[in-house]
Amino acid sequence: MLLRMSTLLLRTLREDPADAEVPSHRLLLRAGYVRRAAPGGYTWLPLGKLVLDRVTEVVRQEMAAIGDQEVHFPALLPAEPYRTSGRWTEYGDDIFTLADRRGAEHLLAPTHEELAALLVKNLFSSYRDFPVTLFQIQTKFRDEARPRAGLLRGREFLMKDAYSFDLDEVGLQAAYERHRGAYRRIFDRLGLEHTIVRATSGAMGGSASEEFLAATPVGEDTFVGCTACDYAANTEAVTTPVPPAGDPDAQPAAEVHDTPETPTIAGLVALADARRLGGRDDWTAADTLKNVVLALRRPGAEGPELLVVGLPGDREVDLKRLGAAVAPATVDVFDGWDDHPELVRGYIGPQVMAKLGIRYLVDPRVVPGSAWLTGANEPGRHATGVVCGRDFVPDGTIEAAEVRPGDPCPACGTGELTMRRGIEIGHIFQLGRRYTDAFSVDVLGPAGKPVRPTMGCYGIGVSRAVAAIAEQHHDERGLVWPEAVAPCDVHLVAAGKGPQLEAALELGRRLAAAGLRVLVDDRTHVSAGVKFTDAELIGIPCAVVVGRRLAEGYVELRDRASGERDELPVDKVADRLVERVHRERGSVV
Amino acid sequence: MLLRMSTLLLRTLREDPADAEVPSHRLLLRAGYVRRAAPGGYTWLPLGKLVLDRVTEVVRQEMAAIGDQEVHFPALLPAEPYRTSGRWTEYGDDIFTLADRRGAEHLLAPTHEELAALLVKNLFSSYRDFPVTLFQIQTKFRDEARPRAGLLRGREFLMKDAYSFDLDEVGLQAAYERHRGAYRRIFDRLGLEHTIVRATSGAMGGSASEEFLAATPVGEDTFVGCTACDYAANTEAVTTPVPPAGDPDAQPAAEVHDTPETPTIAGLVALADARRLGGRDDWTAADTLKNVVLALRRPGAEGPELLVVGLPGDREVDLKRLGAAVAPATVDVFDGWDDHPELVRGYIGPQVMAKLGIRYLVDPRVVPGSAWLTGANEPGRHATGVVCGRDFVPDGTIEAAEVRPGDPCPACGTGELTMRRGIEIGHIFQLGRRYTDAFSVDVLGPAGKPVRPTMGCYGIGVSRAVAAIAEQHHDERGLVWPEAVAPCDVHLVAAGKGPQLEAALELGRRLAAAGLRVLVDDRTHVSAGVKFTDAELIGIPCAVVVGRRLAEGYVELRDRASGERDELPVDKVADRLVERVHRERGSVV
Repeated sequence: MLLRMSTLLLRTLREDPADAEVPSHRLLLRAGYVRRAAPGGYTWLPLGKLVLDRVTEVVRQEMAAIGDQEVHFPALLPAEPYRTSGRWTEYGDDIFTLADRRGAEHLLAPTHEELAALLVKNLFSSYRDFPVTLFQIQTKFRDEARPRAGLLRGREFLMKDAYSFDLDEVGLQAAYERHRGAYRRIFDRLGLEHTIVRATSGAMGGSASEEFLAATPVGEDTFVGCTACDYAANTEAVTTPVPPAGDPDAQPAAEVHDTPETPTIAGLVALADARRLGGRDDWTAADTLKNVVLALRRPGAEGPELLVVGLPGDREVDLKRLGAAVAPATVDVFDGWDDHPELVRGYIGPQVMAKLGIRYLVDPRVVPGSAWLTGANEPGRHATGVVCGRDFVPDGTIEAAEVRPGDPCPACGTGELTMRRGIEIGHIFQLGRRYTDAFSVDVLGPAGKPVRPTMGCYGIGVSRAVAAIAEQHHDERGLVWPEAVAPCDVHLVAAGKGPQLEAALELGRRLAAAGLRVLVDDRTHVSAGVKFTDAELIGIPCAVVVGRRLAEGYVELRDRASGERDELPVDKVADRLVERVHRERGSVV
Repeated sequence: MLLRMSTLLLRTLREDPADAEVPSHRLLLRAGYVRRAAPGGYTWLPLGKLVLDRVTEVVRQEMAAIGDQEVHFPALLPAEPYRTSGRWTEYGDDIFTLADRRGAEHLLAPTHEELAALLVKNLFSSYRDFPVTLFQIQTKFRDEARPRAGLLRGREFLMKDAYSFDLDEVGLQAAYERHRGAYRRIFDRLGLEHTIVRATSGAMGGSASEEFLAATPVGEDTFVGCTACDYAANTEAVTTPVPPAGDPDAQPAAEVHDTPETPTIAGLVALADARRLGGRDDWTAADTLKNVVLALRRPGAEGPELLVVGLPGDREVDLKRLGAAVAPATVDVFDGWDDHPELVRGYIGPQVMAKLGIRYLVDPRVVPGSAWLTGANEPGRHATGVVCGRDFVPDGTIEAAEVRPGDPCPACGTGELTMRRGIEIGHIFQLGRRYTDAFSVDVLGPAGKPVRPTMGCYGIGVSRAVAAIAEQHHDERGLVWPEAVAPCDVHLVAAGKGPQLEAALELGRRLAAAGLRVLVDDRTHVSAGVKFTDAELIGIPCAVVVGRRLAEGYVELRDRASGERDELPVDKVADRLVERVHRERGSVV
């Protein structure tokens, strides 16, 4: 393949586009890989399409290598199967829906669990047909509330989605591990430094799931690691170590105190110390029980219902963690104070929740026997010694409190949590039978009785992976593509016209004939300086400058990543490049 | 590549599915290439996906070979550019539209002329950047009123669309010819016998266009050829040879006659002969002028307007031809007789059209000076000698009359038209400046003045081509794929278990290692007879049966197309197959 800059559909930009916030977005736009075409919608220009195709091919190869079979489902589907599974409602505004000319409701399918289950039901009837895993690589659409960061969160993107069907848990576990391994190999080949973290399952349903996160400061996801063990989890999935419970009845009785003008935790702690409430002057925010009122919306329900979450006063509610904990329901900040005079703002305590019939969930640190300084449900009054399991009984626990660096590790108990940001590039789920139950997928078992297959599903954001690679592989001058995904193997720069241009084109033809992907900068109305700048911006791993020393038979080889430069006789450079590329490809010339 | 039937996501069907009307639909379903997933929406199963990918790759290679650059536009787009071009209205119900969560109107783009023009405007500013042609291969959506015939007319399909930009007509003509040539090569490589026919441009706009039609009895399009020259045209594009005009004033005056009970042409002709109207008894339907009332709807207009079409009484109006002639307006049968008492049903003549202010268009055979037997606009009365150009002056001519086999050829004038049916597999257009005008795409010309590029657009129905190939390549036993698009090169049938199965798998591994695509029927719970039937249904070009004669060292080679069978030593068969496939691929082992 030989691309010529003089005719290539490409315009590099000198300046950062105003609306591009993250490096991948900025550089992919500036280097001419993509252009914005719609809110959250990008046109892939030729160089971008080449990178996307190379990433796609790596994904396809590794999926085929574990025996997954490629299919292609329609993207536009009738609402019916998604109503049956419940996802029509669960996804809410996040999916695009439309009516056809007859008024029948359709959606642009976010993923295809329903169709995969129906296909397997339709095709297979015996245990002999299992296990089976199918996958597709398809453009998906999602009605993002806030499309942002270019390809990282768009409304239209390329995704690989796979669905495994096994007859038992052992089979599902094996399929899950197979995909986990394939994903590692895929991201390794793509040059993506990644971490596998425990995750929540969101609208998919199912029991176990893990995310593959590419670490980068601009990632939307925060994930934790442990200083002592290999625990890693998305913050949404971090579980709080539960302290030992005590005997609720062994505690002193609760006491109510006048605490005027203390609607905040800081004010309350200061006053509690000053007045030596409960005989102490060492109160901390962690001794208080903060009660946060929220509006919980269940899918398909008429209106919101009240939810109060109790957590230690030194922690904020993390709405992302709380959202994951209540999914597929959603929570909003509560703003209906006027309609609920029974809730005394700033002085809410858990003592009245059961009586008021309000759902009350607590942070796992609020164990039976723990005593708290909390609201007394009267203006300007708080209570000390309010004991969980005696003065109030929560409806359950919930992971809603923020996670902080230094928190104890829930896995080993000895290490501390560290926090990083990352981009979700893959997600694997053990779904179980949610979808095979929904569609009554049964096959004849070996013993003659029906068996219901159990499913896994496995996704990779293919176009997002391109952006993630750009996030991890760039410097201040531009992109620095790993060889496995670069749009071309070699970027030939003709520094001048005449013989230099001729030599560059001749070398380009020779390399292309040897199977290399070659970009030649053969522009004649552009200075050598601009060409060098563009080459660094575009980020092809290896550049060859055909310049002044051509007269003496020399050209310059430049390595984009290391910056190393090397002068070589022009008749040696082709062999050297062919060898380099074939070595990288693992093939023999 | 080695696929094993025992694990392949495939179920062949013994019976024809009830709703499959055409051979491609029937066989692609029965042989397990596709499954219906939605109205007009199909899931590509693994074998189908392989064929689709091979067809796609042929298209991609030939587009790249003529220098077209691959891009990828979003499919989901805001309404705005399509409003600017007018296509939002013109396409009407045929496109899927939807509102996003903020209520902003979007569409699933039918094609991307608007985006291509905007991209070029956005990237390029100088004549030096031209010519340029870009293409994409993308899933398209169309809200078909009547999805039918499986992949031939679905609501979701794969399309290759290309857009050329040139600075002048000579450039556009060259781009058009380049694509015409590439399309011939593509369809030749795909094994599609095809005819290039003149076509109308429909909602695209533009001046010249041709369609590539794959001849098959189930095609939706009818096209004509000539017995004497190489003229070929879609019936919508057939032009009627115009007879010589006469002197309107040299004709006898018109006469009105009582013709009771003659609302039909046949009745009128019989009565005219019986009464010797105009002194003749040799009246034919072709001597009468039939006036057909229609409701014309212009895009964006409030209601319909009246249109009367005058044509010789021996011809029917062909609504498809008429529709193409008035596009982007549409026509319907008129049913508003009660509101228009001035139109005397069955006795309408052209004499009053101008006075009534009704748009009146005539068949090209109605030339100035031609005299007609036609309605007198009074119940039960007709007129003879009604002369075009004297007694009435049409507002213009229109190609609305049906075309019939045996009609004179409009190109050579000596041959007769023959008619066949075909599937539209490609369409090439010289668009001109419709879209560059709409978006004011101007670039700096060589003389320093702005130049507005002129566009061509070029489409191939990629998934439809798969169905067209199946239509042209099947027999009563199943599909007969051309080697260039077959899902596999070789189908190995293990006729028995034990050594036969072992030998088939061993041969399969050897062939796969040599680069062949191999399908092995390694099922153990299926009879040899079922395997043979399935192999013929699936239609891979070459089958190898590993059967009883394996004991003597022989296997049987079967050619699917010719039915030829050949016994060969098992140790020779691999060489023979590798040689056969590499010869077909034009490559050297």
